[in-house]
Formats: sequence, C-alpha cells, structure tokens
Amino acid sequence: MIHSDDVPVVPGFLAAAVHAGIKPYPVKDLALIVSDPPARAVGVFTSNSVKAAPVLLTGARIRSGCCKAVIVNSGNANACTGDRGFRDAMAMCRWTSRAMGADEGAVFVCSTGVIGVPLPVAKIRKAIPKLVRILRPDGIPEVVQAIRTTDRFPKFLWEKTVVGGRSVTVCGIAKGAGMICPNMATMLAYFLTDLNAPVPVLRELLKTGVAKSFNRINVDGDGSTNDTVLLLANGVAGNPPVVHGSRGYDAFRSTLHHIMEELARMIVRDGEGSTKTVDIVVRNARTNADARKIAYHIANSSLVKTSFYGEDMNWGRIIVAVGCSNPHIEQDKIDIWYNATKVVKGGVSAGRPQEERARKVLKQPSFTITVDLHMGKGLYSVLTSDLSHEYITLNASYRS
Amino acid sequence: MIHSDDVPVVPGFLAAAVHAGIKPYPVKDLALIVSDPPARAVGVFTSNSVKAAPVLLTGARIRSGCCKAVIVNSGNANACTGDRGFRDAMAMCRWTSRAMGADEGAVFVCSTGVIGVPLPVAKIRKAIPKLVRILRPDGIPEVVQAIRTTDRFPKFLWEKTVVGGRSVTVCGIAKGAGMICPNMATMLAYFLTDLNAPVPVLRELLKTGVAKSFNRINVDGDGSTNDTVLLLANGVAGNPPVVHGSRGYDAFRSTLHHIMEELARMIVRDGEGSTKTVDIVVRNARTNADARKIAYHIANSSLVKTSFYGEDMNWGRIIVAVGCSNPHIEQDKIDIWYNATKVVKGGVSAGRPQEERARKVLKQPSFTITVDLHMGKGLYSVLTSDLSHEYITLNASYRS
Repeated sequence: MIHSDDVPVVPGFLAAAVHAGIKPYPVKDLALIVSDPPARAVGVFTSNSVKAAPVLLTGARIRSGCCKAVIVNSGNANACTGDRGFRDAMAMCRWTSRAMGADEGAVFVCSTGVIGVPLPVAKIRKAIPKLVRILRPDGIPEVVQAIRTTDRFPKFLWEKTVVGGRSVTVCGIAKGAGMICPNMATMLAYFLTDLNAPVPVLRELLKTGVAKSFNRINVDGDGSTNDTVLLLANGVAGNPPVVHGSRGYDAFRSTLHHIMEELARMIVRDGEGSTKTVDIVVRNARTNADARKIAYHIANSSLVKTSFYGEDMNWGRIIVAVGCSNPHIEQDKIDIWYNATKVVKGGVSAGRPQEERARKVLKQPSFTITVDLHMGKGLYSVLTSDLSHEYITLNASYRS
Repeated sequence: MIHSDDVPVVPGFLAAAVHAGIKPYPVKDLALIVSDPPARAVGVFTSNSVKAAPVLLTGARIRSGCCKAVIVNSGNANACTGDRGFRDAMAMCRWTSRAMGADEGAVFVCSTGVIGVPLPVAKIRKAIPKLVRILRPDGIPEVVQAIRTTDRFPKFLWEKTVVGGRSVTVCGIAKGAGMICPNMATMLAYFLTDLNAPVPVLRELLKTGVAKSFNRINVDGDGSTNDTVLLLANGVAGNPPVVHGSRGYDAFRSTLHHIMEELARMIVRDGEGSTKTVDIVVRNARTNADARKIAYHIANSSLVKTSFYGEDMNWGRIIVAVGCSNPHIEQDKIDIWYNATKVVKGGVSAGRPQEERARKVLKQPSFTITVDLHMGKGLYSVLTSDLSHEYITLNASYRS
C-alpha cells in the first residue's frame, strides 16, 4: 500500500529544510537530504541543451555512483548564470560538506526557480549550518515543502516491500507544475530507499521507471534547464545485493515504478491551472515513434487543451492535431474514443448519441482519449492537463 | 499605396455574399467570387494530412489552371465528413455552375468553420441562385464579411501597380484567427488580379509569397484541415503576358507580396485573444532549418506567449525554448535582444539596466525578439501572438 498521509521515514536517511531567504516570503526554500552511510546514486537529467549549473555539477559527480548528501534550493534556478553560477553551485556543496564533515565530491546540488538571476549565496551559506543541525529522520515532508515553486500541493509517496527477506522502504518526493513536457521538464524528484543494490541495477530501475512516468507527461510543452531525478539507495535494509530479474528485483521495481507513475500523475494533476488530467493513447500507428509524435502533438495542442478545459465536445481539434503531427496518416481510418465511447469512426462522426455520451466523459476530472490509426502496431501514451484561465494568470507574471 | 478603407474593385471580378443559414445568427455565411473571363488560377493548400472535402476537390480542379468562380461558406468546414462531405462539396460547385451557366469543373469551393458536422446543403442550394443574382463589382467587402469566423476585424487590402504600361489591380482578402501555425493553418485567402500572366509565373509568385507571409505565422500551433490560398488572374488589364524577371514581374511581385505579408500580419494581430504581435528572429544558427525549428519552438511556447501577455521580463523562458528545440546549441554563445536592447549576452543576463529597458519594449503592442546563436549563418523569422485569458475564453467553447 502506498502511503502519503503519515510521515515517511527511510532507514539511514535524514532530512531538513529552512527558510534561507532566497524567496522573499517566509517559506522554506533550502533543504538537505543526507544518507548515512553514503548511498549508491544514479540520476536522470534534463535533455534541454541549456542546462543549469547544478545540473552540470551533479551530472558530473553522480558518475562516482556515491552520494552523501543533496542540498537543494527553490526560488532560484541558478540557470543561465555563467561561470558564477557554476562557482555558486560548487560553493553550496563545499559549505554543506564542511558543515557535515563529509567528502565534497559526494555532495550533490539541485536548484529550481527563476532563471538568469545569480543565487543569493550569502544567505545560503549562512543557513547551511542550521540545516545540518536540525537534520532528522522524519524531515522528508519539510523537504517536499521547501522544493515547491508553483506546486499547489506537496507530492510524496512511500511504500514498503520485501526484498531478500528484508523489509525495504521506498520514498519518492517530487516538485513540478509548469514547464512540464517530454523528457521531464521543470521537475525535481528524489527516490530514497534503504535497498542494497549495485549501481547498474539501480540505473536500469531508474531509467525504465522514468521512461514510463516522468517522460510521458506534458503540461505546457517546454522542458526545463534544471530537471533532475535521483535514486539514492543506502543498503541499510541489509538485503543481499539485488540481481536483475530476481524476485526481489521484481518486487522492488514494481514498488518503485508504481510510485514514479503516481507522482508523475500528481504533477500533471497539479499542472499550472490544471482542472483535468487526460491520458492520450495513440495506438496502431505505423511505429511506436509515430505514435509518440502524434500523442505529444495532441497533448501539447493549445486548441485541444482549451477544449478539455471548456468540456467542449470538439473531436475536430484532436483530428486536426493528428493530421498536423504526421504526414503518414490515412484520415478515413482514424477512430477516436473518449473513454469507452467511440466518437469518430473512419474519420467521421460516429453519430450524435455517441457525441452526447462523450460530453459526459468531458465533465470528469480525468479521462482517456484514444486515437486508433489502424496503420500498424505502434503504441504510445502521454498524460496531459487542460489549459485554463488560471494557467495564463499564473504564467503571465511568474517573474516580475 | 495600399488601400483598405474604400471599396476594392478588380476589373473582371464580381462578388456577393448572403446569409444562407449555415450560421445560426443573421450574418452572411455564403459568398461567391466570379471572374469574367475565367481566370488563370493557382493555389496552395493545407499541409495537414487530414484534409477537408473542399480542399481535396479544389486541389484537384486547380490543376486545370482555370477558375470561373469560387463558392465559399463559413460556419461549417465540411471536414471529417467522409464521402458525404465530398458529394456535398461537388454539389455546391454544380449548383453554382448551373445558376451561372458555367463549366462545373471551373467552379472551386472552400469551407471554414466547425469540423465533423455535415453541411446544411439544402440551405446552401436555396441561397445560390440569389447569390448569383446579386453579384456586383464592389461586392468584395461582403465576401470578406461572409468568410469571417472568430476574426475580430475584416482583412483585405488592395493596390494598383503598372505592368507593361497597363494599370493592374491586386486585391487580397483573408480570414483566420485561430489554428494559425506553420504552413497556413485555418486560413482562407484569395488574391484577385486583372494581370495577364501564364500559370507557371503565377504559381511562382504565389509560392514565394506564401513562404514569406502565411507560412511564417503562428497563433496556436495547429494547422487546419481547410487552409486554402488562391491567386486568380483574369488578364483583363490587357498587359502583355508577364515574363519571369521582367520589370513588370518585379513590380507585380512586390505589390502582391507586400499585400500577402501585411495580411499575414493582420491575421496574427487578430490571433484569438491576441494583445501583442511579436516577430521572432533567429539568426546565426547552424542552418536555416535549425533557425526555423528554433523560431517556431519559441513562437509556439505557451510559457513564452503568456510572458508576452503579462509583459513579463522573463528571458529565461525564451532560452528554455531555444534549448528545448534543438540539441545543437551552445548556451554560452546565446544572445537575446528585445528590439534593440540586448538582454542576454553569452547565455547570461546582460544586466539589470538592460532588463529594465526591455521591460518597456514588452509594453508595446508589437516588438521583435532576436536570438543570435553565433554558430553559423542560419536565419529564420516567425510572426507570433501572445497567449491571453481571452484565447482561453474563445477556445474553451468554440463548438458546443
């Protein structure tokens, strides 16, 4: 069973957060996660070719496969800040390592917030010793609070499973509500576990999990400079090292991936201004790559997303997005479903009664649009949100 | 000088419009343009692989290079209507040809409006004889009214030039405000002229004009099923046939292309809910294709467009869109200008004073964002609009 109500504790992990003053209002904006002993670590980072300094630094350090601590701030992305940004990211790690007496190379850093403004490093430096002092096993929910930017609700889930006869805990925490797009977008997510597993196994678990969760969500079509997903496993559970394909591996994978998929869904549900969560499924495309392209085009269409917001029975916009996205479509083969109601059959309306039934589907907070192209075996699905007045309000003045 | 105030008359052309009842409220929704003698005709059509019946029919008929009349309705796109849609489009042409005593194959048809609903053909059939009766030389503005859907203002421009010692008139009319995207989007545009020119010359004039006007605009990222641009030239001016590269050719091209570019700009200015018109220029990309991809990604980014709406000095969103659009970018080479103010230099802020100056640029109704990648010679520009509350309101309930 997944937990999200009571306080998660993962053996061997300590966490804490403070208000360092990066944000102008009194909320927590600097957090620290520590693993004792140091954890095996793997990560996935943004595919945007403009990468923030902390992404570059953490991306380099994670090659060692070892992580003692993660220091993370919100309110400032430390992106597009040039050499100074890189020095600031290094300094955040150095100050943390000194305050803890840890190896500097095993301290990772993440930032999220406004782009192009230098970090207020003096404030961060001052706050770090306090952060270290207040570290505690039940501090994870505070970290979740501290990494929020435009998130409307905190996102964390945890679950226990059994691996090699030992109880193993997995806790996932995430932030992200805007700039959510293919390949992870403005998103930070940390998966903390006491599992004992070698780095290659952890890497495979993370990559396959991200592929079916965070890499299948879309809020507004832009990936961010700072996206980071980390999986930290400190081995405190004492299970024998997990082997790919074993029963323990399957149990852990299923638990981890379930949490990843649920967190991804929570991010879309919290998509800026979002009132609907919609699964876009494209099937029987020529190839999976075709299906993916078409699904993302639908998921990213402002016209489609506003029609979801307006609960407007307008399948024309979906078929337009399909036609726009790919030249290899035969329009008279296209079927479209709203949940189980087939609204388009062979490229034309399946009739008024079907449209009326689908209108009721549109009133639900979440539903599935399925497009069947009848051209091959290609399949892909994307989770998206609607586009609302609230999105415009949130985004018209995020920075100034 | 371009005219848009007084009533355009193009020698040899007649036009008229009526309320046929396709739209539920009493506005003109059916229009007819006739050329006497029949005009030489060339066209460009949607690149969406889902094409409406009238696009398929007119696309086939225009191969003859000859057009006597264009019948066009708004309120219903006759798209995704299957065989019936094709029969209905044929019938519209047949009824028109009979009412006029013209060759059916020289009658073209266009439709714009809601997708997936059969045309109310009985109403159209009934209205056509009246349309033919009221044809007149100064009827063009009525056609402009009749083809409007969500357009807030009518769009037509006309100009006279001299070709081969004869006065030649060019009149362009257009509709389009939503689904405006690369490759023409929900847009109808007709260019009527009394020029005498062979079809291959007309085709070249239209294609090069569309490439730098209607194919460079973006409102919301989706192309339509019905986009059609026609150039009809009936030769009534009596100039010697225009030869590619002659002085007359150059004079006409410059006039035609000027009108096309201005109409394209009007469409973006009228983009659904638009409050800003923004030129996105990408220069010194590796290739023109790279520049195009990046320019469209910026122009189509909801995050960038909402920041324009909010007059929010947030160049981070532009650089994020750049990084998202292309893997071959070096972030520390990127410069970004708001009009003449360089806000980003080498991938980082050019300073607070520059940002303050650019904030004033954002308050203007139109401005230019220039992204210089310093990687090659690639250049492309796109015209886009902002994304406003009004866009959401207009699009959340277009159909129901």
